[in-house]
Amino acid sequence: MLPLRLIERKRDRGRIEPAEWRECIKAYVAGDVPDYQMAALLMAVFLNGMDAGETAALTDAMLASGSTLPPTADRRPRVDKHSTGGVGDKVSLVLAPLVASLGVAVPMMSGRALGHTGGTLDKLDAIPGFRADLTLRAAAAQLERLGCVLIGQTAEIAPADRLLYALRDATATVESIPLIAASIMSKKLAEGLTALVLDVTRGSGAFLPALEQGVELARTMVALGAAHDCPVVALLTAMDRPLGRACGNALETEEAIHALTGNGPADLMEVTYALGAEMLVLGGAARTHAEARPMMEEAIASGAAARLFQEIIEAQGGNPGVVDDPAVLPQAAEVELYLAPRSGVVARVEPRTIGRGITALGGGRTRVDDRIDPAVGFVIGVAPGAWVDAGEPLATIFARDSAGVDDGRAVLSRAIVIADHAEPALPLISHRVTANGVLEYAISPAPT
Amino acid sequence: MLPLRLIERKRDRGRIEPAEWRECIKAYVAGDVPDYQMAALLMAVFLNGMDAGETAALTDAMLASGSTLPPTADRRPRVDKHSTGGVGDKVSLVLAPLVASLGVAVPMMSGRALGHTGGTLDKLDAIPGFRADLTLRAAAAQLERLGCVLIGQTAEIAPADRLLYALRDATATVESIPLIAASIMSKKLAEGLTALVLDVTRGSGAFLPALEQGVELARTMVALGAAHDCPVVALLTAMDRPLGRACGNALETEEAIHALTGNGPADLMEVTYALGAEMLVLGGAARTHAEARPMMEEAIASGAAARLFQEIIEAQGGNPGVVDDPAVLPQAAEVELYLAPRSGVVARVEPRTIGRGITALGGGRTRVDDRIDPAVGFVIGVAPGAWVDAGEPLATIFARDSAGVDDGRAVLSRAIVIADHAEPALPLISHRVTANGVLEYAISPAPT
Repeated sequence: MLPLRLIERKRDRGRIEPAEWRECIKAYVAGDVPDYQMAALLMAVFLNGMDAGETAALTDAMLASGSTLPPTADRRPRVDKHSTGGVGDKVSLVLAPLVASLGVAVPMMSGRALGHTGGTLDKLDAIPGFRADLTLRAAAAQLERLGCVLIGQTAEIAPADRLLYALRDATATVESIPLIAASIMSKKLAEGLTALVLDVTRGSGAFLPALEQGVELARTMVALGAAHDCPVVALLTAMDRPLGRACGNALETEEAIHALTGNGPADLMEVTYALGAEMLVLGGAARTHAEARPMMEEAIASGAAARLFQEIIEAQGGNPGVVDDPAVLPQAAEVELYLAPRSGVVARVEPRTIGRGITALGGGRTRVDDRIDPAVGFVIGVAPGAWVDAGEPLATIFARDSAGVDDGRAVLSRAIVIADHAEPALPLISHRVTANGVLEYAISPAPT
Repeated sequence: MLPLRLIERKRDRGRIEPAEWRECIKAYVAGDVPDYQMAALLMAVFLNGMDAGETAALTDAMLASGSTLPPTADRRPRVDKHSTGGVGDKVSLVLAPLVASLGVAVPMMSGRALGHTGGTLDKLDAIPGFRADLTLRAAAAQLERLGCVLIGQTAEIAPADRLLYALRDATATVESIPLIAASIMSKKLAEGLTALVLDVTRGSGAFLPALEQGVELARTMVALGAAHDCPVVALLTAMDRPLGRACGNALETEEAIHALTGNGPADLMEVTYALGAEMLVLGGAARTHAEARPMMEEAIASGAAARLFQEIIEAQGGNPGVVDDPAVLPQAAEVELYLAPRSGVVARVEPRTIGRGITALGGGRTRVDDRIDPAVGFVIGVAPGAWVDAGEPLATIFARDSAGVDDGRAVLSRAIVIADHAEPALPLISHRVTANGVLEYAISPAPT
């Protein structure tokens, strides 16, 4: 009778108490609450919402359904970053070794691509031999030894979240801010974090395109963090165009390696440094953002960050040679230039079109169990606002065969819009959300 | 992918097209849409509603999932009555033979008791040998021969409705006006009706207690009828106290027989005549309500209505002797008077308390598969507004044993509230809803 009472209450805009969420989620994981009752409850939550206390209680209940990453003897501060996803977003691969090389432990838990957005796990999978499916014990051991581990959501972590996510996916109840926040936070809390930095993308390629939605998610996550003694800082970043130049799994891994060795594209570096500064300050490794920035530049210039990435890859069974020679990554059979069909200004580079295009080339998923080809994708040499001449190379297509090249050409001709006038683009980083509220982001944010 | 798209659309307050409802319901009945998706859709419908066109389309889809009662050679007009339920409501047992004896075919399809309200099928079951589980073929044959048949919802009729009702019951999505209306109407249309009369109860013992809800359901049903060439007229009747005196299955059947033989309580006769007049006018057997009333009084005075009830009982395997001697009905082992604990005015007789009390005595259901004892219940001799003296008999308790008598006493002491002042009671029949709108009900309504 409990689930029926809870559905009724949420349907009537009432409140579900923490003990009730706990009992309900426990019973659901045990198979004692049928999917159809949980589906009705999820839809009632989707439409009638949850307050901060309920969201925290649901998060706790999902967290309690599984295990947590054990603490390490060194008790180093642990900070992770989570992104709401995008196209060309290889930040995690750069950020994790970079921040960890500066003394903050980073237990980076990532997901796989689904829909038009990429997933860090798929990018790591492009590295020959790399394994992200560590047990929590092994992950904790590596975290202690190297200060960084790159893993997927194991079966041990928040099983309630996996079950609920699959059900939400099948019942059109994914895009609910409190449900998204509880889902992210239940997994992040399972990492035993000191703090969490959130990259909330906005714009046409984002999971939540509107600024208001992104800010609401950021606020909800900040409140959830506060309720769990895990400070959360969120940056709102642009996803009205791909981040960096490479889009596609192996191509992005290669670009991440370039970034770690001092040759990353400016926008990727800017976002990485901004998120890294938050992590270093939250982790106590830097006092201010102004102090953090040169620390990170030095870690890249000295090769320390790249060396740590190499050690992580080696520890997780991958070929560490990839850092010195990215050519060991899977290579596409066909590589062709895409030339500007006309002269003009690049008005837009549509991330959703690019993301779906990668899937069309075989490098993404439309179903959870699709196999992907890591080598395919695009490297896009132009950004919105650039003037281009007809016939000038705009991008490179990486495909399995000549049909793939044709597909890629069609994708790019839709994605890269050349016009007579530029269109306004979103600022790369627009807002910063903390427990103190929402502020416009300044290039050199004031020390916290 | 269809159900997911429909859930999404309804979640976002969109409209589901007739062909989509048809496909979705068909797939659901075939087992191709899982319960969890249907549950999410039902909750979205519950919270975001359906417009008249969608309600009609869902009704059609549910109707199309099963068979219909075949037409008869005589092509007599067919009119049925549906009640939203109450306590002491034995109107169907009186009304069906009464109206049928005047030339309008009545294929009365009824349900069983659940919760605090009774069910006509359970009252018929009290008649030794009576069978309501006829096939549609057999029902049509009896309808042709006698002009009346009293059946339950067979497996042939609207199987989608049965599946959906069970799911709604388990997901707190029952009390949705469009879903209720579609559920009722899909079954009634399967009877091949010329017209339908609706008894919408209101007050504390009703399924939808508030007048506004009752009127909304009535309006929705009238609109649904109009969309299906089946005129619907609804009367709003009082259920702030039980209807008539008898409450309990065999006791109500006995009271219905008294009503058919000219000895019914005034309130029961008033509601029966009002609904009957609507049925006779809609069925073309009377031109006006003023003409219909004496026809019905004569059918009772002449014994024609009672004789037809006898024939129906005999045709459906029951003991027809029950009409001449109701003592053949199951009798309770213990019969005891309940005396007024104090002097005063009867302020209330709470139908919900009485209904739940019958269940407590063994005469109702808390689960669909509960077996019931037809003999138990109450006959309540006083109505709200009556002055009573301490020690005066107020009711009779019919129970299985002395413990049941004690339980019955406790029920009546809560249900019959005696106070210093009377409380306002609802008018027995307050409103009439037709395609022309909602009007206050007049004792002698104008001819339609």
